[in-house]
Amino acid sequence: MPVTTVGFDADDTLWHNETIFRLTQERFAELLADRADPAELEKRLAAVEKRNLSLYGYGVKGFTLSLIETAMELCDGEAPAHVVREILAAGREMLAHPVEPLPGVDDALTALADRYRLVLITKGDLFHQERKLAASGLGELFAAVEIVSEKDAETYRRVFARHGTGAEEAAMVGNSMRSDILPALEAGAFAAYVPYPLVWAHEAAEPPQHPRYAELESIAEAPAWLESIA
Amino acid sequence: MPVTTVGFDADDTLWHNETIFRLTQERFAELLADRADPAELEKRLAAVEKRNLSLYGYGVKGFTLSLIETAMELCDGEAPAHVVREILAAGREMLAHPVEPLPGVDDALTALADRYRLVLITKGDLFHQERKLAASGLGELFAAVEIVSEKDAETYRRVFARHGTGAEEAAMVGNSMRSDILPALEAGAFAAYVPYPLVWAHEAAEPPQHPRYAELESIAEAPAWLESIA
Repeated sequence: MPVTTVGFDADDTLWHNETIFRLTQERFAELLADRADPAELEKRLAAVEKRNLSLYGYGVKGFTLSLIETAMELCDGEAPAHVVREILAAGREMLAHPVEPLPGVDDALTALADRYRLVLITKGDLFHQERKLAASGLGELFAAVEIVSEKDAETYRRVFARHGTGAEEAAMVGNSMRSDILPALEAGAFAAYVPYPLVWAHEAAEPPQHPRYAELESIAEAPAWLESIA
Repeated sequence: MPVTTVGFDADDTLWHNETIFRLTQERFAELLADRADPAELEKRLAAVEKRNLSLYGYGVKGFTLSLIETAMELCDGEAPAHVVREILAAGREMLAHPVEPLPGVDDALTALADRYRLVLITKGDLFHQERKLAASGLGELFAAVEIVSEKDAETYRRVFARHGTGAEEAAMVGNSMRSDILPALEAGAFAAYVPYPLVWAHEAAEPPQHPRYAELESIAEAPAWLESIA
């Protein structure tokens, strides 16, 4: 079974993302240090984010709005103006943050682009994701970019049918077991899990027992893995 | 030349959008009535939105963040907490706002869906646009949905090639001369301009002299216009 098409997740697979959220959260914890300890603050923020998910979706802008809302809650509705200003500034900095590919990503994708159709498949804010892809310098290596609102088996079937020769002849590479690996396997594709040190709490899941599954330490191992399939 | 595919813009073409932004702006003006008159406030907000456009893109979440930033500016960095809370609430209400198709839209699209491939082509936030389409009840009528970060001639060429039989055999319907009409004509498609009473200031443009151009009073006239082309 030849693999013709390789899908890649973006955030925390091709470049850092979670780290930048964490840094902002640390700054946020410092700002509100006299109101709550970091653990309590993280819990409150997670609750606000969860409550807002159906309205805000994923991405930096919704995260920034949830930070302000959490600050308001922790200060009984009276968050000081300088806290709000700092959060606004942090959000803008996150959006303007330079996008640097993770080690080995550039070489691996360059090698793969010669042999496979590469497709970027990512959730999140359309505008910001396209901006990050352009800033990463990796844009030219991808035959297609699909920014999707959900990553389920149907999504992978549709994307690999549209941009490749179907999920059976495709492989997905990503750092989220729940969003990248399990639904891609369910769609019939191969899937390589490349864990990122900081996994978002909601995303953790057990590694699957599946003939088409692999775990890699880095994207640098992806070319050899795909070779081994063929 | 048969038309096989009809593209529709979403906001202010299929349902109200600008009105909801305007209502929020009026509420914002009331909140800050002691700091600036409505005209001054609108000018300041427009300047902040323009400055943030390259970071925030289009959509309600970026608009909400820009409202907070404008309030901070108008209050010399010390916007009262209740103003920030009201803006956060207004943003959430905009996102949760029920989506009601404009008069005649439902019937016109139902009639057209039998004869043409209908494609929704819209800018804005992926997550929120998909949510609005689902809430509108019109989702089933569309063969495809393309949420794009820019609407230029190349976008229309690509979308009508992917979901139809090319731009030459496609028509675009929308309320923005600059985003819907001119680039669709440039791509080789037909284009019908259906003006919305409140046009966003940045979007105004002259009506084109073009054999494939039409101006309609309502989407209800779209089926007859497409009939006249065939």
